[in-house]
Amino acid sequence: MTSHDLFQSIQLKKSFLCVGLDSDIHKLPACIPKTPEGLLIFNQKIIEATLPFAIAYKPNLAFYEAMGAPGWEVLKETIGLIPNTHFKIADAKRGDIGNTADQYARAFFEDLNFDAITLSPYMGIDSVSPFLEYPNKWVIILGLTSNSGSKDFQLTKTSNGKYFFEQVLETASRWGNPDKVMFVIGATHPTYFEKVRKIIPEHFLLVPGIGAQGGDLSEVFKYGANRKVGLLINASRSILYASNNENFAIEAGKQAAELRDQMSKLLDDENMLNS
Amino acid sequence: MTSHDLFQSIQLKKSFLCVGLDSDIHKLPACIPKTPEGLLIFNQKIIEATLPFAIAYKPNLAFYEAMGAPGWEVLKETIGLIPNTHFKIADAKRGDIGNTADQYARAFFEDLNFDAITLSPYMGIDSVSPFLEYPNKWVIILGLTSNSGSKDFQLTKTSNGKYFFEQVLETASRWGNPDKVMFVIGATHPTYFEKVRKIIPEHFLLVPGIGAQGGDLSEVFKYGANRKVGLLINASRSILYASNNENFAIEAGKQAAELRDQMSKLLDDENMLNS
Repeated sequence: MTSHDLFQSIQLKKSFLCVGLDSDIHKLPACIPKTPEGLLIFNQKIIEATLPFAIAYKPNLAFYEAMGAPGWEVLKETIGLIPNTHFKIADAKRGDIGNTADQYARAFFEDLNFDAITLSPYMGIDSVSPFLEYPNKWVIILGLTSNSGSKDFQLTKTSNGKYFFEQVLETASRWGNPDKVMFVIGATHPTYFEKVRKIIPEHFLLVPGIGAQGGDLSEVFKYGANRKVGLLINASRSILYASNNENFAIEAGKQAAELRDQMSKLLDDENMLNS
Repeated sequence: MTSHDLFQSIQLKKSFLCVGLDSDIHKLPACIPKTPEGLLIFNQKIIEATLPFAIAYKPNLAFYEAMGAPGWEVLKETIGLIPNTHFKIADAKRGDIGNTADQYARAFFEDLNFDAITLSPYMGIDSVSPFLEYPNKWVIILGLTSNSGSKDFQLTKTSNGKYFFEQVLETASRWGNPDKVMFVIGATHPTYFEKVRKIIPEHFLLVPGIGAQGGDLSEVFKYGANRKVGLLINASRSILYASNNENFAIEAGKQAAELRDQMSKLLDDENMLNS
């Protein structure tokens, strides 16, 4: 998928929602067995209920790796449940040197058929470049994350008076064009989106922190959208755990539809649905 | 294991060698089938050949994850082959927020019985603290890595004139004491070890970059050792792939023994073997 394909998908769906499949075996609804098989059934029902309202899915790998080998199988099966119309992000937050990064690239892009992987920038270009060599695949680099610990380093100042995350955006945006590279910018920092857009006007941003973490969708859109929207807004817990009863999938679908409706209105207000 | 236990292990073995189990299924000797089962046999023979000369083992998870679910099983079986006398490091370079970090901590410390995990500092304290809650387990935070990309961000300057990795050491060393926290400092930057020791005189350092990457053991020891040695020197490829023939394990053992001999001499010269 190119950034143009993503924009077309946004216009078609009137949505820029990414559903975070942070599916925790300990939090499954009472009607689902707390087993790897149960987790796969849960994911299937969540995906089916949210497909019309989402353009992307993002499993966080920790939740699958915590189950060992069976978790890895569930991850692979889950990816197979998502049609090619939807963008598939491996939320891996990896970052390792060349020969190791090669291994990860093969695992995520070839074996698991993800479209994109999240990466930490800390180790620099040679931890990212092996992923950039795959045609039609994306890297999504951590910029300003949504958690409170983001202030520890990302919001420290560099010698030229910028925030460290700004330095990351400036440097890493030169590693690949806006059809290969996105950045994670947390919704819990809406006022920073103006700074972000001055540095990277064209790149897509993957935005966690809406919902359970308290970020505000319309604020993010106001300061973060570009002329091709350029946003993938992730929601995880607010959708996955909308209900603990047998109606969990219906309620998940309702939550996703509600976010889609909010997004649709924002897009419509800015006249972005026709172009 | 405490830092005192590690020091005792170093004195007993006259070694501070960590063997990096970056075992690549594509690089197995000709006599070993290039399958997950073959990889496990390879690891077993490498471990058996190097046990007398090493005090720690460090599988890099990318090489196992690249094989999918069977790779995860090989990793678990491999850890089971390492006796409790030896320190077991999951080279994962993870970094994610609280609820996700919990999942990883459970996977690596409980399910896989690792003693330590490598973590990226970029997301700050809440990506590290869930790991610090486990008694007798360690986190090893990336400081100054051995790859060329380390200059991209780790060697940029902060507003107070320090390198960014120094800021990481200063801040992250306050997150846990020297019995819980280590740092990765690459052997390819020997002159920086003096700076490192001014900031963290007591912490253990995990040092990659000896061997294939060109780092110098005696330089690292000269500038990086503290009064309890405080170094775990990692070697991976130079040991694993010492030979491509049936004698690969014997040659791996020889490489490890040679490093042990060099370490033993350094320790003896500094009168660190008796205390």
